[in-house]
Amino acid sequence: MKLLIERLCAIVGADGVITSGAALATYESDASQDRGTPTVVVLPRSTAEVAAVVRTAHEQGLPIVPRGAGTGLSGGAVAVEGGVVLTTTRLNRIQRVDLANRIAVVEPGVVNAELTNRVAPHGLYYAPDPSSQPACTIGGNVAENAGGAHCLAHGVTTNHVLALEAVLIPSGQVVRVGGPAPDRPGYDLMGLLVGSEGTLAIVTEITVRLLVRAEGVATVLAAFDGVVPASEAVSAIIGQGIVPVALEMMDGMTTRAVAAGLLEDAGAVLLIECEGLREELDDKEGPLATVQAICRAHGARDLRIAFAAADRNALWKARKSARGALGTLAPNCYVHDGVVPRSKVPALMARIEAVAAEFGVPIATYLHAGDGNVHPNVLFDARRPAEAERAAAAGEAILRACLALGGVLSGEHGIGTEKQAYMSWALTGTDLRTQARVKLAFDPDERLNPHKLFPTPGFCGEVRGASRPPG
Amino acid sequence: MKLLIERLCAIVGADGVITSGAALATYESDASQDRGTPTVVVLPRSTAEVAAVVRTAHEQGLPIVPRGAGTGLSGGAVAVEGGVVLTTTRLNRIQRVDLANRIAVVEPGVVNAELTNRVAPHGLYYAPDPSSQPACTIGGNVAENAGGAHCLAHGVTTNHVLALEAVLIPSGQVVRVGGPAPDRPGYDLMGLLVGSEGTLAIVTEITVRLLVRAEGVATVLAAFDGVVPASEAVSAIIGQGIVPVALEMMDGMTTRAVAAGLLEDAGAVLLIECEGLREELDDKEGPLATVQAICRAHGARDLRIAFAAADRNALWKARKSARGALGTLAPNCYVHDGVVPRSKVPALMARIEAVAAEFGVPIATYLHAGDGNVHPNVLFDARRPAEAERAAAAGEAILRACLALGGVLSGEHGIGTEKQAYMSWALTGTDLRTQARVKLAFDPDERLNPHKLFPTPGFCGEVRGASRPPG
Repeated sequence: MKLLIERLCAIVGADGVITSGAALATYESDASQDRGTPTVVVLPRSTAEVAAVVRTAHEQGLPIVPRGAGTGLSGGAVAVEGGVVLTTTRLNRIQRVDLANRIAVVEPGVVNAELTNRVAPHGLYYAPDPSSQPACTIGGNVAENAGGAHCLAHGVTTNHVLALEAVLIPSGQVVRVGGPAPDRPGYDLMGLLVGSEGTLAIVTEITVRLLVRAEGVATVLAAFDGVVPASEAVSAIIGQGIVPVALEMMDGMTTRAVAAGLLEDAGAVLLIECEGLREELDDKEGPLATVQAICRAHGARDLRIAFAAADRNALWKARKSARGALGTLAPNCYVHDGVVPRSKVPALMARIEAVAAEFGVPIATYLHAGDGNVHPNVLFDARRPAEAERAAAAGEAILRACLALGGVLSGEHGIGTEKQAYMSWALTGTDLRTQARVKLAFDPDERLNPHKLFPTPGFCGEVRGASRPPG
Repeated sequence: MKLLIERLCAIVGADGVITSGAALATYESDASQDRGTPTVVVLPRSTAEVAAVVRTAHEQGLPIVPRGAGTGLSGGAVAVEGGVVLTTTRLNRIQRVDLANRIAVVEPGVVNAELTNRVAPHGLYYAPDPSSQPACTIGGNVAENAGGAHCLAHGVTTNHVLALEAVLIPSGQVVRVGGPAPDRPGYDLMGLLVGSEGTLAIVTEITVRLLVRAEGVATVLAAFDGVVPASEAVSAIIGQGIVPVALEMMDGMTTRAVAAGLLEDAGAVLLIECEGLREELDDKEGPLATVQAICRAHGARDLRIAFAAADRNALWKARKSARGALGTLAPNCYVHDGVVPRSKVPALMARIEAVAAEFGVPIATYLHAGDGNVHPNVLFDARRPAEAERAAAAGEAILRACLALGGVLSGEHGIGTEKQAYMSWALTGTDLRTQARVKLAFDPDERLNPHKLFPTPGFCGEVRGASRPPG
């Protein structure tokens, strides 16, 4: 242990190594329910330092857990079995902004909102906007393939990353993947690394696309009697060929928690944002007018529309404060992240209501309705006997319902430690073994962010044991 | 050999096995310069038959080369060292069209244009449109991650595939990757398989997104004095935040070859297609009006615009006939597929002109200018002494220029056999070895489409030899 600390201090400096109990505690958890104490936390400043840390950890036989801002909701940055937590806090430079080609090159510790702030004077922005945007890092977004409310039209992180530099384990070798073309030569390892939850390589530099801000933006808020008419309005909007930049829904319980005197009797609220030329938004037969007409036709009351940034932010406020507001309703809140085909949203919402009754736990749901990405918040009090177990069982029942409706386990929060046990519901043994073979191609000793993603801690080892030795 | 044929006939029926010299000849080449004679060609009808063929080939120690319509431009479907060519011709069913969720499930042998024809009555289409669209298969498009003229706004094949079913080698096990969510659980193996040029697994079913046809479409043709002002117009259009669905350029030589009495003195021609609501296209300050104003400001003469399908097709005709027309200028035509950042297009075009002079071969270039994806056609007569060598050297010089300008080797045609020798220019040894580790994770014996992608036939074997045995 002493030797390890000495070596790490020699690489990153003594102020970049955290070993004391109190300071370590910060790194024990992320925004999920899981915990794990790191052996040591290290804060490198360069790719070369990351590579040296990787080699040192390997020599000492320790696992490495990469970590951004610790805002993840699935346990991806938790050091389940201890080891070296490699934090990107100091890898926080925006290295280059190329306005002509609309790209930026950033280090992984750059905070998501900071990049948009930097390029905003040029009318540009970085599209993925998870709700943790003011705190989360772009490196963490890459690891989790983060989404956000505005990803309906523009896509998730993988659609905005052009190239990556990453450090491989155990050699510390530096690899570059991706490039400026839409279809790059060779295997799409960039797509493979994005969303790999820090289990394949440690990303040290990210080249991203920047988008041009639309001339006009309009936000529509529409209150409905329930989730069924609201969902039908969503399907009708998409069915008209309109793709709003955001198409969010809150159920009645979420609306009551956040509404602060407004809309409190609504059974569901839609928040719809459209972008375009000003003329397009003003057009009486344009997409914005059509969205409002569709909402009215589906029984919307209290239809509001805002154009100015301050007015739009006022409409967004309810949705953006949803997670915090739900936190005041119960001591514990377990947020899930299932996805169903858009047309199955009403069926899933009905099932969630039934699950809440069955397990005796309130469930408040907000959703990226345009994507069918549903966030049910199971509210409970872990101090009461068996309530945590009932909350977990309710979450499981909802995820099973997502799969039964043709959906998937996670839309944007990742698998991490939280949903690894459910992976075998969604994927066959062959599917999982194929994933494990890719894991072993990158990390033959399973030292990089171990005990994540796969259904059991020993899963990759079993696959390795079952394979012939190559050659 | 006799045993092999018997077994294959037992799997797919005698009419699905081709062994005779004359019939085999059809399968010796694709649309590239390369050749190779298959040992046998087999035409399975189902996933189960594909799996059985894979197992049989493995037992006989033969490589397998998957093949669609054979329209590929990089040699991906050529049986370099013989073996079993597995053709998807009979896997040609559109299994399901789900209009509500706008997806289609197809077998790999479905012809690209056929899917769009099937869903057109519902106002839908499948976006990727390589110029071989009337002949090429969606399975081949997946293997090469095909693009097309209309991919500027909508992206290439990987942006339109939602899920795949594939058969693994050597076991014949069936794996399903992808699903309905934008960020799917686990590693993005779907992204990895798309564009892997048939070297990782054999795709047997493809779920794709369908898009809604825009209400209005307008095509603009603009003639310029040369490629520099045309390129500057392209940058100005994109710089205004306008993303046309297509933004194509032809240089002077291509224009002369295709123009048939029109535009013959143009130094460059742009073909720009905008989609939107009819009101948006009519708007005097809308994107279409802006595109025309920018072209005029950059010296465009002979600016034409078409709205009706027949008129638009007339403008597209020149561009769509370019490859054929260039074929009449010389007995041989070697088309390249480099990519540079959009702002570097003028520099690359100047370099191509210099290369043509230096090597004494005419080069006619058309390009997906919005993407910076450039198709220089090196024209030569292989019967003349040393001309094929000079043509190859000119192509190499152009690809080196693409890389020097910050670009990549291939935009949409793939690496295959044609550009494998150049992979080591673009990727470091570590980059390539990382790719090879992924190849070996899927195909430990290198039996699936061997001698493709990697710089030397033995490259993967060297990587395997250098790795520790796992476990």
